Amino acid sequence: MQTLTVDLGDRSYPIHIGAGLLGRPELILPHLAQKRVVVVTNTTVGPLYLARLSGVLEAGGIAVENVVLPDGEAYKNWETLNLIFDALLIRRAERRTTLIALGGGVIGDMTGFAAACYQRGMPFIQIPTTLLSQVDSSVGGKTGINHPLGKNMIGAFYQPKLVLADTDTLKTLPARELSAGLAEVIKYGLIWDAEFLGWLEANMDKLHALDPAAISHAIHRSCEIKAQVVAQDEREGGIRAILNLGHTFGHAIETGMGYGNWLHGEAVAAGMVLAAQVSQHLGWLAEADVVRTRALIRAAGLPDTAPDLGLDTWLDYMGHDKKVEGGKLRFVLLKKLGEAVVTGDVPAEVLAGVLTAPH
Amino acid sequence: MQTLTVDLGDRSYPIHIGAGLLGRPELILPHLAQKRVVVVTNTTVGPLYLARLSGVLEAGGIAVENVVLPDGEAYKNWETLNLIFDALLIRRAERRTTLIALGGGVIGDMTGFAAACYQRGMPFIQIPTTLLSQVDSSVGGKTGINHPLGKNMIGAFYQPKLVLADTDTLKTLPARELSAGLAEVIKYGLIWDAEFLGWLEANMDKLHALDPAAISHAIHRSCEIKAQVVAQDEREGGIRAILNLGHTFGHAIETGMGYGNWLHGEAVAAGMVLAAQVSQHLGWLAEADVVRTRALIRAAGLPDTAPDLGLDTWLDYMGHDKKVEGGKLRFVLLKKLGEAVVTGDVPAEVLAGVLTAPH
Repeated sequence: MQTLTVDLGDRSYPIHIGAGLLGRPELILPHLAQKRVVVVTNTTVGPLYLARLSGVLEAGGIAVENVVLPDGEAYKNWETLNLIFDALLIRRAERRTTLIALGGGVIGDMTGFAAACYQRGMPFIQIPTTLLSQVDSSVGGKTGINHPLGKNMIGAFYQPKLVLADTDTLKTLPARELSAGLAEVIKYGLIWDAEFLGWLEANMDKLHALDPAAISHAIHRSCEIKAQVVAQDEREGGIRAILNLGHTFGHAIETGMGYGNWLHGEAVAAGMVLAAQVSQHLGWLAEADVVRTRALIRAAGLPDTAPDLGLDTWLDYMGHDKKVEGGKLRFVLLKKLGEAVVTGDVPAEVLAGVLTAPH
Repeated sequence: MQTLTVDLGDRSYPIHIGAGLLGRPELILPHLAQKRVVVVTNTTVGPLYLARLSGVLEAGGIAVENVVLPDGEAYKNWETLNLIFDALLIRRAERRTTLIALGGGVIGDMTGFAAACYQRGMPFIQIPTTLLSQVDSSVGGKTGINHPLGKNMIGAFYQPKLVLADTDTLKTLPARELSAGLAEVIKYGLIWDAEFLGWLEANMDKLHALDPAAISHAIHRSCEIKAQVVAQDEREGGIRAILNLGHTFGHAIETGMGYGNWLHGEAVAAGMVLAAQVSQHLGWLAEADVVRTRALIRAAGLPDTAPDLGLDTWLDYMGHDKKVEGGKLRFVLLKKLGEAVVTGDVPAEVLAGVLTAPH
């Protein structure tokens, strides 16, 4: 097991990464304020892991209740969130009862937001069961739901007490979702660490095969990079924006194609290629850098070409992005591989060229 | 104009109290991060004050948009909150756009919660137009909405950048609502300041007449007491609970009688009498203290007798209160006039006696 501490003063918390962690209640028990938890999961993950988690917690003397939500990004909305509130109120969950998120990013985001809002804040624990959520939602405290007019528009910054990333849960993850998680792993290399990018190129086969040492290293290094960035900028005023490489484009793809048709990681992957292409047009990346980026993204099993939304639709959906400031679009681009910058200075013709050119 | 600063480190903010403040944009402008605001108000307050506020802000070079919600506690729910989100998204409000709450406690609570959640947090300003909201919502950062199973169950702690309490707005407040606000003012005397309680007894006529000096003093002293308590306990772990004198009973009255049929302040007033009666049974208050409390509450134009909900209903609705801990009800009671305590040790027969005795 590897452990990383996210350093946020009195809201610091540990991330444990390794195989078999779901079977180790001693990692969870010290973080409970009350011998009572409510586990939130979904119809896919619940049948796989809920009984096991409940069993070890109950053996540890904890009262365990659960809420099983429908699975999918399409349910990341107020109606589903309200199922959690209903369950908490019907069962009379208290302020010191702990909410546990058992599932992927959607479960983590909704459970975290429910915890942030229920009685104005109750403790929660993340047990992410997808690679994407292990490397993304584990750090940063972003919680929330979608609105019909925009993704993740309603939410809170709210930190968990503990994150438990059991790499064994990846064995039941569909290959397409493993790839979607790799998109974020690749992102950390692109924005922060060229050496890690090289390691990913050399170890992509091991990652697809879920080699325990390789997958743990990839998760650990990803969380470490994200934690370094977030520690400098908890509420997303400045440098943290670099974590959104590919996301402005990616959100537009997800919205344009309908939530859930492209996986988040797939949209981000195609978005990162667009960001690399814009960076090349600005003279920051060489063509070889873009080729290398696309090759790694393809090797991860991800799309390296964005869908053709049409320029108006692109601009419309990107305008709803949270990185808009003073009415002006801001982009995360690459100064070089391993170094990101945030800029509002992308000439309209460069943007239009990349978005409408044959890819 | 009197000014009070609520001291919360980097989230400190001023409360300005006085006549004619709505006409003084120079009090608002320095707090805007962007020359753009969205004002949230309701169908009662909007026609009275929205044009005036918008006019002075626009004269100051600010782009002003607005959302007018239906009026009443019955609308303090997700559906109404979502009208704010819809408007913010349709108008593409940004993270640094300021949301302004113009109205009473319901508008303030919902607007503050919308600000806390929109893009995970945008700045907001409170312009409370009722006495209750001027002395209650101005301090403490509590925001939220009701759930069919419980009042204020979904929300956030979120601080405004500024509170502007224009006492002129009280001239259009119905007498019944002025009285409801006086319930909270009396509460501050009961829990914290016996001298202020005496001042209230001596000045109740002036307060009903909206004597400018008297009403400003009552608001200022109330906010000051609340700020002292909240500064010690921002997120409601300890002493802050004393601010809920009468509220455990009051929430049960509001729920039992149907949201909105009893005003919050009326329910709290009757609840404070119950708390005083329990305190008398425990030997803390003399009968004369209870008589004096009831007389002041009646003088304020408030009910000093709770409705008969039936013991089971009382206990059921009180069990949903946020002050439940470890399944045990906790009560805010009075050690003496001017000093509150929080206790879980109320014998069941004392509670049952007070709740079911002829009042």
